[in-house]
Amino acid sequence: MKLLQKAILPIGFKAYGVSAGIKKSGKPDLALFFSDVPCKAACLFTSNKIQAAPLQLCKEHLKKSKTFQAIIANSGNANCFTGRQGLLDAEKTAILAAKALGIKKESILIASTGIIGRRLPFEKIKAALPKLVSGLSSQGIEQAKLAIMTTDTFAKTAMIKCQIGAKVITISAVAKGVGMIAPNLATMLCFIFTDANISQKALKSSLKDAVDNSFNCISVDGCMSTNDTVAILANGQAENALIEKEKNLFTFKNALNLVCLELAKLLIKDAEGASKFIRIKVWGAKNFPQAKSAALSVANSNLFKTACYGENPNFGRIIVALGASGVDLKEKDLKIKVSSLKKKDILVDVWLNQGNSSAVVYTCDLTPEYIRINAEYN
Amino acid sequence: MKLLQKAILPIGFKAYGVSAGIKKSGKPDLALFFSDVPCKAACLFTSNKIQAAPLQLCKEHLKKSKTFQAIIANSGNANCFTGRQGLLDAEKTAILAAKALGIKKESILIASTGIIGRRLPFEKIKAALPKLVSGLSSQGIEQAKLAIMTTDTFAKTAMIKCQIGAKVITISAVAKGVGMIAPNLATMLCFIFTDANISQKALKSSLKDAVDNSFNCISVDGCMSTNDTVAILANGQAENALIEKEKNLFTFKNALNLVCLELAKLLIKDAEGASKFIRIKVWGAKNFPQAKSAALSVANSNLFKTACYGENPNFGRIIVALGASGVDLKEKDLKIKVSSLKKKDILVDVWLNQGNSSAVVYTCDLTPEYIRINAEYN
Repeated sequence: MKLLQKAILPIGFKAYGVSAGIKKSGKPDLALFFSDVPCKAACLFTSNKIQAAPLQLCKEHLKKSKTFQAIIANSGNANCFTGRQGLLDAEKTAILAAKALGIKKESILIASTGIIGRRLPFEKIKAALPKLVSGLSSQGIEQAKLAIMTTDTFAKTAMIKCQIGAKVITISAVAKGVGMIAPNLATMLCFIFTDANISQKALKSSLKDAVDNSFNCISVDGCMSTNDTVAILANGQAENALIEKEKNLFTFKNALNLVCLELAKLLIKDAEGASKFIRIKVWGAKNFPQAKSAALSVANSNLFKTACYGENPNFGRIIVALGASGVDLKEKDLKIKVSSLKKKDILVDVWLNQGNSSAVVYTCDLTPEYIRINAEYN
Repeated sequence: MKLLQKAILPIGFKAYGVSAGIKKSGKPDLALFFSDVPCKAACLFTSNKIQAAPLQLCKEHLKKSKTFQAIIANSGNANCFTGRQGLLDAEKTAILAAKALGIKKESILIASTGIIGRRLPFEKIKAALPKLVSGLSSQGIEQAKLAIMTTDTFAKTAMIKCQIGAKVITISAVAKGVGMIAPNLATMLCFIFTDANISQKALKSSLKDAVDNSFNCISVDGCMSTNDTVAILANGQAENALIEKEKNLFTFKNALNLVCLELAKLLIKDAEGASKFIRIKVWGAKNFPQAKSAALSVANSNLFKTACYGENPNFGRIIVALGASGVDLKEKDLKIKVSSLKKKDILVDVWLNQGNSSAVVYTCDLTPEYIRINAEYN
């Protein structure tokens, strides 16, 4: 297995991206991903109680349809807190795209990212659709990846190939951040494409595992977006033996984990204002949820993150965050090791000595630049 | 009832503060509060699982003794994460102070605030004790209030007088912050003195109510300290009819609430780097815990706090924080009102329309100055 940060689409997938004028800047803001044949799909969404219109529509489609063939996504507008009108706009977008692609409306997934509370400029999307559809190509991920960016400073892609029986399958993915750090840019999108032949059940459990170990293990500012969406489409074009269980499923899960973790790390590296990449590992917790809670409590501590920015090795701030996490621990059992704060990559290791579970979380420092970006954003 | 920000000690109390050399700066760092007669006492401590040595010792004394006569507190060192040595140092301090005051060790409460993980300089405290005890006077709150400060830019006191039957009772209090914002300055201390004659049960429930409605309703950076302590001593010298229940208890509770809320607001006003004072009120929640959770979720959102600093009225950030709070709400029922962000005092009102409960939380903005202070602190 070889993991790359450059992605080309697997067999049978096409993509494209255009500037529809949703962003004031005129930068690309409308992306389309398409499979020549129907795909199995799995999706995970934010657990925020406010969910943007496209998420609501996706959930409806996932109930109604068993196969999917396209994902349409825009940046520059989150279509969130837009009420009934927002749902109508999302639906009209799906209907129009389905018509242009010659597929059913229910086999389209839809995603939006950008500012909250403003109406989606549907007419602009409508006007841009013909160009978007006619541009679809097997190389079009290059345009599509740009069209989902908001304050991202670079596009994020990853690809892996692995052997399933006699065949090689490919998993390619594109993501945009900027972490969970900018919920009103609303926020994290990740679209994953594979030519693997895999059962619906195996696809769903693989995605859940991969997300739990990657996107759910990163934190920029502890804020949770209304639009976070991770979707995977599997079109079976690699013609491998069906991935269902045991060795093949293990191989697929492992590959998908690597792709998602790579993208999650890229999101943290491109977090707003970040100057440090911080890995926090908690060892010896009673169970995985406790290990993760302890690590996240440190990752979300403004005081710890500010100390990292200041290169100020103040271990008291780690202790305080651990104690406040609610996780079982005793002062006398606690051991903490922190690598040099002078370097760009910082490693924090915490031993709770309460059990045998561990968890890793990735985060970044809190900087004046984060405040500048978010104070001035409109 | 008249609430003042200037406090004089109630009948029978004395205080003093000196420079013991615990702080490198040479500023006052050791305070003593003393009552001529034994007092009833009630205390509340941080819920952080790491608890500093003085908190552990206080809890032991509260179990062993029914009356208290003194509080000794130092700044500049939290005596936290100092293991068995820390407990010994706290105990030796209590023993020495008790001897100098001619009282039992168990009738002393002890508190520390300052940096975590360094040994308490007991010898310096020992050397300063004679001067501290001989300086005790009914006006000594002026010195004592300075000796508990860390990065506070001003001393915080409040006082109220109220009528209980034919007598006037006084509640005077002193607090230091700087909010919950600097756990490694470890952090919030509040000492309250009253000459009221009040039952143990009434004193305890009054303190809990007051803290729930004041110190537990403020947040600077969501960080929870290891040393937070609120203590009240009641010496009965006002000779009022015993406060136990009904009207008299209601009056006392009301007065204590006002004192604590005043100090809580002062803590927020003096929060590190803060340029805005923000009041968040959530209306129409199903119950009080939900109202408070929703309000705290907004108060702890870095994005919302940064928007306040930038005077950028971005209501999407409030919506995101509310949705992430886990509280029952529906997009269509939500109503939000925000006063002008250009002013120093910002009012946020949120109507959930799910029930009849409300809660108020106070916080401040997140500024580059907060980062500067906490990045450079050693």
